[in-house]
Amino acid sequence: MPATARSHGRLAVRPTLKPRELMTNTPDIAGVWKAKVITLFPGAFPGVLGESLTGKALQDGTWQLEPIHLREFGEGKHKNVDDTPAGGGAGMVIRPDVMGNAIDFAMNGVPPDRAKWPLVYLSPRGRRFDQATAKRWSEAQGITMICGRFEGVDDRVLFHYGIEEVSLGDFVLTGGEIAAQAMIDATVRLLPGVLGNAESVEEESHSNGLLEHPQFTRPAEWRGLPIPEVLMSGHHGKIAEWRQKMAEKITRDRRPDMWAAYEASRKPDK
Amino acid sequence: MPATARSHGRLAVRPTLKPRELMTNTPDIAGVWKAKVITLFPGAFPGVLGESLTGKALQDGTWQLEPIHLREFGEGKHKNVDDTPAGGGAGMVIRPDVMGNAIDFAMNGVPPDRAKWPLVYLSPRGRRFDQATAKRWSEAQGITMICGRFEGVDDRVLFHYGIEEVSLGDFVLTGGEIAAQAMIDATVRLLPGVLGNAESVEEESHSNGLLEHPQFTRPAEWRGLPIPEVLMSGHHGKIAEWRQKMAEKITRDRRPDMWAAYEASRKPDK
Repeated sequence: MPATARSHGRLAVRPTLKPRELMTNTPDIAGVWKAKVITLFPGAFPGVLGESLTGKALQDGTWQLEPIHLREFGEGKHKNVDDTPAGGGAGMVIRPDVMGNAIDFAMNGVPPDRAKWPLVYLSPRGRRFDQATAKRWSEAQGITMICGRFEGVDDRVLFHYGIEEVSLGDFVLTGGEIAAQAMIDATVRLLPGVLGNAESVEEESHSNGLLEHPQFTRPAEWRGLPIPEVLMSGHHGKIAEWRQKMAEKITRDRRPDMWAAYEASRKPDK
Repeated sequence: MPATARSHGRLAVRPTLKPRELMTNTPDIAGVWKAKVITLFPGAFPGVLGESLTGKALQDGTWQLEPIHLREFGEGKHKNVDDTPAGGGAGMVIRPDVMGNAIDFAMNGVPPDRAKWPLVYLSPRGRRFDQATAKRWSEAQGITMICGRFEGVDDRVLFHYGIEEVSLGDFVLTGGEIAAQAMIDATVRLLPGVLGNAESVEEESHSNGLLEHPQFTRPAEWRGLPIPEVLMSGHHGKIAEWRQKMAEKITRDRRPDMWAAYEASRKPDK
């Protein structure tokens, strides 16, 4: 990249002011959790989030979703959002000025306290998303998520806004949109009134530090395999005991790391 | 569940044979990687996978997607797919006979060798999905994914078919659909011809055991922040060295586990 970067002089002009003036945020409903998602593919939302329990809760106004189209903040006639990496290399990087204007738009009017309204960038370089993060986000008023594409966003954006980088896991996706949907799903289902039965949340995997016990249902025999006898006994105490033992066994076998943490948490303090 | 479970006697009747006769698999294109997804929400596909590079590759026939609607295999007039958990408890469990018939349909005609065609169930109890799994799956001929909903599927199904349980991460989703899309995205982008530039795959996070170095692009200065000088120097050797150092620093700071594995892998054998 030459020192006389062609876009340098545009800083004063701010051609991206126009879409910011034209665009308005979706009205916030007081007390309703909201996800704002900065993306190049707003049409991919709500996607799966529009189905089933999360979809019903969205229609009922239990939570809100606002996709923000990054392209609207793009530069020039073609609404460019990216440019080649400084120092060379493959792919394209999202420009800091374009992303900065989209973030300013998204964060306009939300609580400045990041505990109340996290601002996160979905990136394989981030801290791994987990159930505790979903819990924490579900207790905020809402969240703004930035979906990367290409080689990611200019690092100055992350520094300038103090953005939290969060990763869905140790793998690479084409973009952040699916990661955003996964994290929104995991978070929204913890909001009051989204799941029909609160009990479901308490007993499931990753809530009590154990993986969930196996489940069975009708028919009583299938392809020569019966349902374990204890589950047919009607003896609630024995059933609870069997389920706890199975949950412990599965956790020990499959996830020694979770098992170690579970055992440590059960040790009484001296 | 009483010992005289009402569905017990249905084993011989197999009312689910009808949809299996009526349904036909999407024609397989020889040599084209295919994802078959058993789901209650076939309309959620391709979703984000229909956009951008994965969407273009899908249209170009570089890969194939076949959502299989579990409801089609349901029981009775209402096409029921689930029933209450044996032994009691919250939620509903997907019936083994219904899921079994859907799996038989999906696996009809695919290679019986699971290395060539994995059969996986997306569940928070599974082994964690990672880049190595994406690589392995991309080298298969295709995959069949089972999306759970509610309290999951009857455990006998997993046992009977020897199904591999895979988890997107340590969190709980409303269903397996978003997890399926994430895993398909991560896998498909490794197929030859999906990404424009093969180099992108080599340098990115989780491919060489390190998180990726920061990226920058125009403008050269943004909100008082310049692009690091070395990247503007044009000195390729120094740029490569800086990027390697930054990747190592970020990995060491953020992911001590990855850093330890990286260091161990670099130690010469004695």
